[in-house]
Amino acid sequence: MSQDRQDHTRSDEPSRLAAIVSKIFAGQSGNITLSTSLSDDTATALVAGADAQDDCAVFRMTGTQELVVGSDYVRGPKFRLYELGLLNDYDVGYYLVAANVSDIAAMGARPIGIVTVVRYPPDMTDVTFAQVMCGIRDACQRFSAPNVGGDIGGAERLILSATALGVCLPGHALFRHGARPGDVVCLTGPTGIAGAAMSYFRSGTRSALIEEKHREHLLASWARPNARVREGVCLGDSGVVTSCQDTSDGLKAAVESIATASGVGVVIDERRLPVAAEVSAVCECLDLPVLPLMFGDSVDFELVFSVPPDRLTLLTELFAADGLRFQAIGEATAAPEVVLRQLDGRQVPLPGTAWRHQADPTVSTAT
Amino acid sequence: MSQDRQDHTRSDEPSRLAAIVSKIFAGQSGNITLSTSLSDDTATALVAGADAQDDCAVFRMTGTQELVVGSDYVRGPKFRLYELGLLNDYDVGYYLVAANVSDIAAMGARPIGIVTVVRYPPDMTDVTFAQVMCGIRDACQRFSAPNVGGDIGGAERLILSATALGVCLPGHALFRHGARPGDVVCLTGPTGIAGAAMSYFRSGTRSALIEEKHREHLLASWARPNARVREGVCLGDSGVVTSCQDTSDGLKAAVESIATASGVGVVIDERRLPVAAEVSAVCECLDLPVLPLMFGDSVDFELVFSVPPDRLTLLTELFAADGLRFQAIGEATAAPEVVLRQLDGRQVPLPGTAWRHQADPTVSTAT
Repeated sequence: MSQDRQDHTRSDEPSRLAAIVSKIFAGQSGNITLSTSLSDDTATALVAGADAQDDCAVFRMTGTQELVVGSDYVRGPKFRLYELGLLNDYDVGYYLVAANVSDIAAMGARPIGIVTVVRYPPDMTDVTFAQVMCGIRDACQRFSAPNVGGDIGGAERLILSATALGVCLPGHALFRHGARPGDVVCLTGPTGIAGAAMSYFRSGTRSALIEEKHREHLLASWARPNARVREGVCLGDSGVVTSCQDTSDGLKAAVESIATASGVGVVIDERRLPVAAEVSAVCECLDLPVLPLMFGDSVDFELVFSVPPDRLTLLTELFAADGLRFQAIGEATAAPEVVLRQLDGRQVPLPGTAWRHQADPTVSTAT
Repeated sequence: MSQDRQDHTRSDEPSRLAAIVSKIFAGQSGNITLSTSLSDDTATALVAGADAQDDCAVFRMTGTQELVVGSDYVRGPKFRLYELGLLNDYDVGYYLVAANVSDIAAMGARPIGIVTVVRYPPDMTDVTFAQVMCGIRDACQRFSAPNVGGDIGGAERLILSATALGVCLPGHALFRHGARPGDVVCLTGPTGIAGAAMSYFRSGTRSALIEEKHREHLLASWARPNARVREGVCLGDSGVVTSCQDTSDGLKAAVESIATASGVGVVIDERRLPVAAEVSAVCECLDLPVLPLMFGDSVDFELVFSVPPDRLTLLTELFAADGLRFQAIGEATAAPEVVLRQLDGRQVPLPGTAWRHQADPTVSTAT
């Protein structure tokens, strides 16, 4: 990063994380031991900090726990369905919780609570404010993560942010790194539904061009998103999973960041990819190709993870015992490329565009 | 709270906390045990949740720790000195950390880390963004609370929020409740400096009407605020303190909320109150009374706490051993009134106005 005050570079989020944040906070992980002054029993060690660039930070606590902590702000320029009047205040409160507990799930931890920041505009009535808080409460109940506190107060507009906390057994936190060549790459459910919802509703197609049940499922992907909390706990407890990330930035972004962090390539097998009926319906209705929607900028909160092939059966059984399932969709490779093996056998780069904050082509990128 | 959709009541923050938030999240504290499915060793219990309405939530972890978690959003309508150009982007990053670790200090816990949400407007350059992050980093270093992660990305304007984490020994977390009649009420340092700074700089008095060193101290109360982290750790470790709160909403608000939560009254003794030279200087310069500034809406991050009289000497010695000090300023009483005993012996209500978000007299209050 240049220190020149005349430098007007405005990088996007991934570039700032890589070029600025990771440098400023370099060397934290594994090197910080905290709170040792009282006694050795209360020593807390930072396993993964800001430099780890993962979904959450991880602390090694005393006793039999690691603490996992992640923070997500949700009301950005992406919340178009709220502005279109398709989501209400209850829904955005609900969404705030789902987005935050998804980060805990992606670390293989079980949520223990969430703290929420709810700042409201001067014209927000008590009734509307209570709707936001009820959305938060109900999502917390669904995901077994009580809202334990936070900060409320005024602002120019509704601002929603939160921090989720989770615990796992020592050494069981799952990171983006850790996948090894030969590992099976898996997915907890079909992707592209939230992106398809955005395409459908923003197209102005509110009439019944698709079946009502599909329309309901599309809207539910934003109004009642399902964070894969039970699946995340199962992955973490199993002790056999080598890497994990959620698909909140899209399937392409999730697979590519696991590959980059792990130093492996990935081959995704098109014929093994689960396709949601709603995504097919929207693509048919709007004459869109399916694969870019499934891989691209779609906030689905599914989990992508890797597991050694000789542990795949064990993990499948552990999932089944909890009434859960996942789908093997590909394989990690020693070759560094991340590709899709199409139905015709040809390998191509993953389709779709990963979500990037400020993905403005006029914005220069830091060098 | 009325469920009538025609109800346009817009209550202020304390009313919403009392009438809406505390009801929606009623009955959490002491009644939630989390993550028991793995084994009893990993059970985590919620000691204080959103219903406790304290500075932080408290979890009982396994091992020898309680986990303390609090969240503060800082860029509200109050950040006038930034808009006046007296604070820069580094300063507001620094402030974000100080405000958040102060909540940990107020719980008697030692910080172990902070997660930060930094959302920036499209025109913020990499240089300016890095200044915010460097302010965060340097404050984290000062208060021994590493910035371990969070969320960065775009927004319409700069939005800063954070969550601080701390640990203390089981049962050692300090709450607003717990003060008993006869307890000595104490303060870690003079209050009113941040409020005096606001009065001084907003008056347009930028020329040297007060001594340069006073001007510097006034600005430093916002640019380099000192969260009382070492004092908070000392209070928590001591095991003799019965209640604690920081003065981030002003001294009057802190004393009154300890009194209300504890079911006691408080008599503050004017002759024992520490007066900062800068506050006197500003009051003289602007012809303002001193006491309303010292008690009112001034974000000083000092700690107010109570201690039984027979433990006062022990606590003073523990502080002195760490090179720290505090000031006894009054006493908790069985009579419920919270009053100031003036120099002339008369008792009057505490002067000053406590900070209230949206303290707009045109806004109706919930009944």
